[in-house]
Amino acid sequence: MSSEMKAVLLPVGREILTGRVLDTNSNWLAQRLFEIGVKVMRICAVDDDEVAIGRELHRARADGARLVVTTGGLGPTPDDLTLKAVGDAIGRPVGLNEEALAHVKRRYEELHREGRLLRPGLTPEREKMAYMPKGAHILPNEVGTAPGAFIRWGKVLIFCLPGVPQEMKPMAENHVFPLLKTLTKGVLKRLTITLEECDESTIAAIIREVQPLVPEVHIKPDPKRFSGQHQMAVHFEAFGPEEEIDTRLKTAADLLRETLRKGGRDSRTP
Amino acid sequence: MSSEMKAVLLPVGREILTGRVLDTNSNWLAQRLFEIGVKVMRICAVDDDEVAIGRELHRARADGARLVVTTGGLGPTPDDLTLKAVGDAIGRPVGLNEEALAHVKRRYEELHREGRLLRPGLTPEREKMAYMPKGAHILPNEVGTAPGAFIRWGKVLIFCLPGVPQEMKPMAENHVFPLLKTLTKGVLKRLTITLEECDESTIAAIIREVQPLVPEVHIKPDPKRFSGQHQMAVHFEAFGPEEEIDTRLKTAADLLRETLRKGGRDSRTP
Repeated sequence: MSSEMKAVLLPVGREILTGRVLDTNSNWLAQRLFEIGVKVMRICAVDDDEVAIGRELHRARADGARLVVTTGGLGPTPDDLTLKAVGDAIGRPVGLNEEALAHVKRRYEELHREGRLLRPGLTPEREKMAYMPKGAHILPNEVGTAPGAFIRWGKVLIFCLPGVPQEMKPMAENHVFPLLKTLTKGVLKRLTITLEECDESTIAAIIREVQPLVPEVHIKPDPKRFSGQHQMAVHFEAFGPEEEIDTRLKTAADLLRETLRKGGRDSRTP
Repeated sequence: MSSEMKAVLLPVGREILTGRVLDTNSNWLAQRLFEIGVKVMRICAVDDDEVAIGRELHRARADGARLVVTTGGLGPTPDDLTLKAVGDAIGRPVGLNEEALAHVKRRYEELHREGRLLRPGLTPEREKMAYMPKGAHILPNEVGTAPGAFIRWGKVLIFCLPGVPQEMKPMAENHVFPLLKTLTKGVLKRLTITLEECDESTIAAIIREVQPLVPEVHIKPDPKRFSGQHQMAVHFEAFGPEEEIDTRLKTAADLLRETLRKGGRDSRTP
């Protein structure tokens, strides 16, 4: 698992840090990115704070990420400052983006026509959502009003998505994943098996024996509370060409089953 | 909101980064820490990787955190390496901790007696859970087998908790929060009101006007998908002495309501 595109997710918003909101966006993004062969190396939730956002962008690049996805902070309120923070951090200060402005104007007109907003037209707060880092491409928001942004920062691709899940998901499906799929050269895949063994420390001994034999497959037991059910799930994950990946996973799983059946290399349990 | 104890949460585990597991631990910890006056500045999920864990510990300290709480990576499998990573990162390499060893031994005996494990006794994998950074205090695990750890790293308190929520929560309740409560000098509190207004950009203009008048209160609207319901929630959060905090929040909320009623300083919407 070494040639994947590495990614950092940056959910933005104090509501996550105070626990008022459970960040389900990152979990959804992580699942979808896994499927298309992107390796998420870190999920870092930060405050509505320009310094914090900029700092984590630079750390992501320093750690080798080629993709950063922010969620949240695109709206009209003063603490919605993701785009400004990103722009300042990468040396492309925000300015009024005409394409984004047209998008915002159109969306408020549409929402007004649909009877979901009392007042159409632009206000300073609405215009704020059209301020984008220089060179940003806008990502249409067909549910809410604030457009997302896509910015190339040297070798790093930055996508800024909304925080409201109902707005974020279609934007990601329609405007983020299709592009990423053209850039990744394989898939990440998972195989899960169930073993007739409930003690993680026993499984641990077996994994320690098998893992070095299949270094390209990541083996991970699923620790559960000791429940008296004598079963445990083990997950096998690997990145590689689509036509080879199933065989790799199955080989590793068969080897683990076989080793467990034999009781491991030595009999460590009394 | 400036004199709180700042914290960084470090959930550890690839299962979070691939989206297989939704990290609910951090949300629970964030809520509970908020209540006792600890300000979570970052929630950073990292891989089962010593370098990644150590790097984030040092970043937390560099950013002014006085508290770091890790979750996960305490178990018997090879990818459970949180304590080793922490020990190496802060210059206190792990060694066999006699107190931890007695704990692990006792827990396996108890689980065996309760009929929930086939084999009692120690194995290398079980002993692994008793390797602690030098100077660590153990935190008993009364549900699973792996003890947690509490380590003072200069001015930074590090708590290492299990990843299984049923083990993590009682450990935090019994062995983390009571200590932290003696160290925080106030409470964080939230007041939520509902306004008869559905447009976030209108609320944004009002908040921009009111926020500077109550700088110690953080005002945050709750953006929802445009739903046609002409209501929006606004949250007010502040840190301070318990006897003053309710008044502060109420003052800010009253001011916002009043300003909205008057339509703001100027009439920006056509």
